[in-house]
Amino acid sequence: MSAFESLKRLATEAAIVSSSASVLGWDQETYLPEQAHDWRARQLSWLAGRSHELSTSKELGDALKAALDETDSSDERTLGNLREMQRRFDRSTKLPASLVEKNSEISSRSKHAWATARKTSDFSLFAPHLQSVLDISREKAELWGYQDEPYDALIETYERGATTASVSRIFDELGPDLRNIAAAAVARTEAKPAKLPEGPYPIDQQMSFNEKVARSFGFDFDRGRIDTTTHPFCTTLGPDDIRLTTRYEVSDFTSSLLGVLHEAGHGLYEQGLRAGDFGQAAGDSVSLGIHESQSRLWENHVGRSREFWAHWLPVAAEHFPQLKNTDLNDFLAYIHRAEFSFIRVESDEATYDLHILLRFELERRLMRDEMKVADVPAAWNEAFEKSFGLIPPDDAHGCLQDIHWSMGGLGYFPTYTLGNLNAAQLFAASMRDGSIRSAFSKADYAPLLQWLRAKVHDHGATLEPSEIVKRATGSEPNARAHLNHLRERYNR
Amino acid sequence: MSAFESLKRLATEAAIVSSSASVLGWDQETYLPEQAHDWRARQLSWLAGRSHELSTSKELGDALKAALDETDSSDERTLGNLREMQRRFDRSTKLPASLVEKNSEISSRSKHAWATARKTSDFSLFAPHLQSVLDISREKAELWGYQDEPYDALIETYERGATTASVSRIFDELGPDLRNIAAAAVARTEAKPAKLPEGPYPIDQQMSFNEKVARSFGFDFDRGRIDTTTHPFCTTLGPDDIRLTTRYEVSDFTSSLLGVLHEAGHGLYEQGLRAGDFGQAAGDSVSLGIHESQSRLWENHVGRSREFWAHWLPVAAEHFPQLKNTDLNDFLAYIHRAEFSFIRVESDEATYDLHILLRFELERRLMRDEMKVADVPAAWNEAFEKSFGLIPPDDAHGCLQDIHWSMGGLGYFPTYTLGNLNAAQLFAASMRDGSIRSAFSKADYAPLLQWLRAKVHDHGATLEPSEIVKRATGSEPNARAHLNHLRERYNR
Repeated sequence: MSAFESLKRLATEAAIVSSSASVLGWDQETYLPEQAHDWRARQLSWLAGRSHELSTSKELGDALKAALDETDSSDERTLGNLREMQRRFDRSTKLPASLVEKNSEISSRSKHAWATARKTSDFSLFAPHLQSVLDISREKAELWGYQDEPYDALIETYERGATTASVSRIFDELGPDLRNIAAAAVARTEAKPAKLPEGPYPIDQQMSFNEKVARSFGFDFDRGRIDTTTHPFCTTLGPDDIRLTTRYEVSDFTSSLLGVLHEAGHGLYEQGLRAGDFGQAAGDSVSLGIHESQSRLWENHVGRSREFWAHWLPVAAEHFPQLKNTDLNDFLAYIHRAEFSFIRVESDEATYDLHILLRFELERRLMRDEMKVADVPAAWNEAFEKSFGLIPPDDAHGCLQDIHWSMGGLGYFPTYTLGNLNAAQLFAASMRDGSIRSAFSKADYAPLLQWLRAKVHDHGATLEPSEIVKRATGSEPNARAHLNHLRERYNR
Repeated sequence: MSAFESLKRLATEAAIVSSSASVLGWDQETYLPEQAHDWRARQLSWLAGRSHELSTSKELGDALKAALDETDSSDERTLGNLREMQRRFDRSTKLPASLVEKNSEISSRSKHAWATARKTSDFSLFAPHLQSVLDISREKAELWGYQDEPYDALIETYERGATTASVSRIFDELGPDLRNIAAAAVARTEAKPAKLPEGPYPIDQQMSFNEKVARSFGFDFDRGRIDTTTHPFCTTLGPDDIRLTTRYEVSDFTSSLLGVLHEAGHGLYEQGLRAGDFGQAAGDSVSLGIHESQSRLWENHVGRSREFWAHWLPVAAEHFPQLKNTDLNDFLAYIHRAEFSFIRVESDEATYDLHILLRFELERRLMRDEMKVADVPAAWNEAFEKSFGLIPPDDAHGCLQDIHWSMGGLGYFPTYTLGNLNAAQLFAASMRDGSIRSAFSKADYAPLLQWLRAKVHDHGATLEPSEIVKRATGSEPNARAHLNHLRERYNR
């Protein structure tokens, strides 16, 4: 067997185990009976242990080294694949097993404490756990290494090649204009509130409409499905098994629909990776900022566009008769409504990134020890008032609203906005091709998907995220396309 | 750690892994996308390998021996638990890994060949695979050991303590009277055909009615759920996670309902095992003949009874308005209709066991080498005509109808009838308690469930199946109660 073949065998075995854990994780979020959570946690922990063993084994390390030695340096894809696998292997093996266990314990306890703290809106219950998360995050950063500051190493976990400085630069480019656009958009909605025709929008009709649209985007239901959950996500259970989830509001069909389009964007990316490379970097997504670019592109640039609704509003009216006489402009005003509100996951396109800029700023200060954990609520509220003109009524609507910190996910938030910027930049580049644009106007999304397949999906993780964006669009990642998009959307 | 504690730890780990495989198996039969089967097979095979390793490890064997040594011989439950674990361990370790792998390969190929053979009704496609199954079954029987003949060892796989002779004895007791009862029942249905009011019976209404009834039986939906599949089953994904499945016919709500009641019977047994003993024999079901007794008891003795429908027909009519004016006697005639038909899984209470007697006879002759594989179709048809007065139109309606042989499950079929006999014997014994009977007539099933919990479920696999029946009913397992039940049902 060649070194590469034996590497592939080992990587596939690791993927078999981690994707088995994903099946159990998916079931946990969709169908698991109330009292079955304890046992499920034990099953997941056993699988996580085996998965970690396999992905950090000496055998895998040796096979990687041997495969790199035998690879022709002119073969960019293979080299990119192996180097990224090496990078991931190094990062995993830099953390001793004892730290990995401690980390998992902290995040498990911390999640639990956070849930209680949020329910009672009592930050003091969460504070000691956030401190533990901070401490172990610093420990991990030291073990991983970083360029300028420890926060770099955390960002790198989710966005390969990104640093505090690079994120900061791009967020600084975004911030001032974004604030103006958001303020104007909110003012316009306030001046002329938009409403959706009254429900009920029956759930079975929502399901069949959502599926119809996801199918038109190219989501392959022979290689995936949609289920119901409370916190929507997309997960990959195998190379041909991509599961989307959503939740339903009987009073508003657009909530589940736009959720499905978002998750379908993630799912199309996963379905566009090469199945034969599953388990290797070449068959894996490259970063959260690229993943989120795909979900936001399909959700916002396609699913919230005028062209989209010109076609789909009449189809929606076949499912929901109350939409029969709805005017397209009135409907778009509803889809494009903007308001300053407390909760990130419920926020609109105009204000979403403001939530992220705020979190990035706080995380950076925490990691630099420029701020103590105890000061987080006050700092949050102060920053929130500055950006949104509102003071959260309690910490549940402020610094306790998101699960990420409790899970140890410092460095995760910035990728949401990187995703928005990448989405706009990629979509604008695709629209330069007139045939993609004209098909898109006719609700034919195949050329757009084909473009994304070739320019983004097919690379897997063989290139850096910024390199993918650069090759696809001709420019380094930047905020211009996103700002243009928001200006155009909210100036109409 | 005491020897028992370390045994418990090892047994729990093995159960964590095997129950993880059960999650993947459940998903495979309910929600798996079309193209995801190959990867799922690889995941399941990896988990099966680890599960086999853990349940046959030297460490486990040593812990078992040590735990047995330290156990007080007067502690019946603990001793029964350990001895049964020892018996299972010995059976597993008697098969070398190479044979286990060969067996899994044969059954995998054979299942595939069987599916094609049944589709085209071409026995010759399946014959060589059935021969391989026979050969490896004989090999396994030699390794396991047996009392009188190799078939004993196969029956023992599914029904601990049973032998060809013991099954034969009880089937001989059943056969002649059963044939008379079945013939009379079929004649009565022919003389006066029964019909269900016409559908549609909407599936969402079926779901909500089925759940209502299963809940009234005591099935705990915080520790389980019902999903949809093509071949209904019940599976255990953890001590507090018991999943039932069913399928729906829009034209007949009783099909999914009686299916759910059957699976709920299995599920109530699993939910009645001690969760704290999960992974040990004390927390596991004892045999298929006892498992099937629970499903048949709730399906037939409760769910097909006059008392049951006196209460539930009006409730059904709230879900299905076409039942509003249905007469209870007419409805019961439909529920109790009997006919000679080709397919076991579609057969009624009166004729079901005839299908099993036929299979037992053929399996015994095959295993004794009194019949060649090539002669199975002719032998099947001859026996079928003798029992049912019908000749199967093709092998798909004859010897190719069931999956069991292709899976290597020789010795499995007899447990269906043992289950029917045990069900009748247990139910009759429970009805001797007047308070259980009177509650039952008032649709209060809690006292009946409590009786089954104490007399059957709680023992787990610490006693032999026949001992459980004997202690619960006062008699050795026999055919009398079942024959009485059928006589009473079909003479009304």
